[in-house]
Amino acid sequence: MSKPSIQVIAIGNAIVDVMAPCADELIGRFGMTRGGMTLVDTDRANELYAAMGPARDISGGSAANTLAGLAALGSTCAFIGQVADDQLGEVFAHDIRAGGIRFDTPVRAGDPPTARCLIFVTPDGQRTMNTFLGASQFLPADALDEAAIADAEVLYLEGYLWDPEEPRAAMRRAIAAARGAGRKVAFTLSDAFVIARHGDDFRSMIAAGEIDILFANHIELAALTGEDDFHAGIAALQDKVPLLVVTRSERGAVAVTGGELFEVPAEPVATVVDTTGAGDLFAAGFLHGHVGGRPVSECLTLGAICAAEIISHYGARPEADLMDLIKRRMG
Amino acid sequence: MSKPSIQVIAIGNAIVDVMAPCADELIGRFGMTRGGMTLVDTDRANELYAAMGPARDISGGSAANTLAGLAALGSTCAFIGQVADDQLGEVFAHDIRAGGIRFDTPVRAGDPPTARCLIFVTPDGQRTMNTFLGASQFLPADALDEAAIADAEVLYLEGYLWDPEEPRAAMRRAIAAARGAGRKVAFTLSDAFVIARHGDDFRSMIAAGEIDILFANHIELAALTGEDDFHAGIAALQDKVPLLVVTRSERGAVAVTGGELFEVPAEPVATVVDTTGAGDLFAAGFLHGHVGGRPVSECLTLGAICAAEIISHYGARPEADLMDLIKRRMG
Repeated sequence: MSKPSIQVIAIGNAIVDVMAPCADELIGRFGMTRGGMTLVDTDRANELYAAMGPARDISGGSAANTLAGLAALGSTCAFIGQVADDQLGEVFAHDIRAGGIRFDTPVRAGDPPTARCLIFVTPDGQRTMNTFLGASQFLPADALDEAAIADAEVLYLEGYLWDPEEPRAAMRRAIAAARGAGRKVAFTLSDAFVIARHGDDFRSMIAAGEIDILFANHIELAALTGEDDFHAGIAALQDKVPLLVVTRSERGAVAVTGGELFEVPAEPVATVVDTTGAGDLFAAGFLHGHVGGRPVSECLTLGAICAAEIISHYGARPEADLMDLIKRRMG
Repeated sequence: MSKPSIQVIAIGNAIVDVMAPCADELIGRFGMTRGGMTLVDTDRANELYAAMGPARDISGGSAANTLAGLAALGSTCAFIGQVADDQLGEVFAHDIRAGGIRFDTPVRAGDPPTARCLIFVTPDGQRTMNTFLGASQFLPADALDEAAIADAEVLYLEGYLWDPEEPRAAMRRAIAAARGAGRKVAFTLSDAFVIARHGDDFRSMIAAGEIDILFANHIELAALTGEDDFHAGIAALQDKVPLLVVTRSERGAVAVTGGELFEVPAEPVATVVDTTGAGDLFAAGFLHGHVGGRPVSECLTLGAICAAEIISHYGARPEADLMDLIKRRMG
C-alpha cells in the first residue's frame, strides 16, 4: 500500500446555501421541522424562498463544508459531487476549488439546476434547512474517480446523500474502492430523519465493519442506537466502530476508541449567530488532527475550535484564518 | 401636487456582490485600483474570479443597498434596475423584494447575464471592486415607471450607472419626470473615477439646478470640485445644491444646507470587517431621516449608525435590525 497523496476525499451534496434570519413563528407557520433538514421539491422551495427575508448565498453541503475546513487547516483534499451547468454550479465549483480542494466531477447539463438549501436561522442561532437536491441527486457512480479514492487516506461520506438512489450506489462503490485499497472510511450520520429513513443501511454497514470512523451528534446517536441516554448510546455503539466521535452542542464532544473515552468541552463563543455547519466543521478539525497523527484529545480540541468559529457568523464555510486561530489557541 | 405614496424610488445597478477576503499583495499583483470600482469585461472577470478565494454572494448595487437600508428602517421604497433571466437575477430580485421594496422592472432575456461585482476585501476592511455590468447596463429608458417616479418624494440615482449609455438616458428621463412632478432628485457621485469620466455631466446638472440632494465622500468632493482641501471643496459646492452631504470615512460626515454646516463624528466600530456599502448605508440613514422630516443633525446621526452597522460584517446589506439599533442608540 503506497503512501496516499490525498488525505481526505469526500463525496457529498454540492449545494449552495441560501440563508436568512427569521422569526421563530415562521418555522411553525410553514410547518418546517425546526433544527432539521427536510428535502423539498420545486414548488415548496419556491414557496419558502418567497417567504424568506433578504438572504446571503454561500456554498455549503455538509461534506464539502468539512473539506473547506480541512483544506483551510492545510490538509490535502478532493471532493466528488454533482452540480448543474448553471450560475450556482459555477459558484459552488469556484468556492471549493478556491479553497484548494481538487474537484473534477463533470458538470451535468440540463435540468434540474444546482442544489440549494434554504436555511432559516432563528434568533437563537438554530438553523432549519430545506434542501432542493436538484442536480446533486444525480451523481452517477461512473463519475467516481476510483483512482483518487484509492489514493486517499480517508474516504469521507455524508449521510444526507444516502437519500437519492444514484449517489447512494456511488457511495457504496466508493466504500468498496476505498476498502479494497486498504483505506479508511469515515461516515457522518447527518440527521436523525435520515437515520429514520436509512438506519437499517447504516447499522448493516457498521455491523459489516465498513465504517472506520463514525461521526454523529447526540440526537443522531439516539436515533441510530434507540438509546435516549447519551452514555447508553455510546456504550451500544463503541465496540462496533474503531473510532466513534459524537458532538453534543454546547456540552462539547466525546470520542471513543479502543474502549477509551475522550472528552472536550465546547469552546466559548461570544454570540452564536448561526449553527449551520457546526458538525461539519467539528469533523474538519477532528479529521485534520487524525490524518496528522495527533492524539485523540487534540483532535477533539481542534474540532471544538473549528465548530466555535463557524457558529459565530453566517454560513458554513470558515471566515477566520483557521490555522492562525488554532495556533493562537493551542500554541 | 398630491402626497407621494413612495418615499424613495431609486435607479441603480442590479448587481450581486461576490466577496472574499484577500491578501494586500493580490491587489497589486492583478493591477487592481485599491479602494476603487473598475468596470471589467468577461475575460477579466473570469481571471479575477479564478484568483479569488472562497466567496459569499450577497445582493448589492449601490442604490439598491441604500434602499435595503431605507426599507429596513421603515421607509416605503421602489427600485428600478435591470437583471437577466438567470439564477443571479432571481437572487437579486428575491433579496430586494424580500426587503419590502417594490421592484417591477421586467427581466431581460438572453445574454449578457446578471451583473456581478467581484469584491476583494483586504485585511484593513477596504474593498476593491471589479464590476461586470452584464444585463445592468441595458436598462432601457422605456422600462421606467414614470408614474411611480412622479409618485415618489425622492428620486435617488447612483453615479455608477452613468457609465453605460442606456441607463444614462433612462436616468436623464427620470430626472425630468421627477422634476416635472415637483419631486426632489438625490444623486450620489459613487466614485472618483466615475467623476473623472462624467464630471462635466455632473457639474452641468448641478449648475442647472437638477440635483436637490448631493451625496459624496471626501475623495469624490475633491474630484468634482478640483479642491484638495475638504473645506475648500465644501465651500465650492455648498451654494450650488440645496442639500450637500459628504462622508469622510473615520472622520464622520458633514451636511450643508442654507449656508449652515452640520457635522457628525463616525460611530465607533469594534472591528471594521468590510467597508463595502458604507456610503450606501450612510445615505440610507440620512434619507430615512430626511423623508421623515427630521432635523439635519439627526439625519447625519442616522447615517452614521447605519454605516457603522454595515462595515462590521461582510456585505452591503444590513444584518442587524436597523430599527432596533437606532432605537437603542437614539432612544
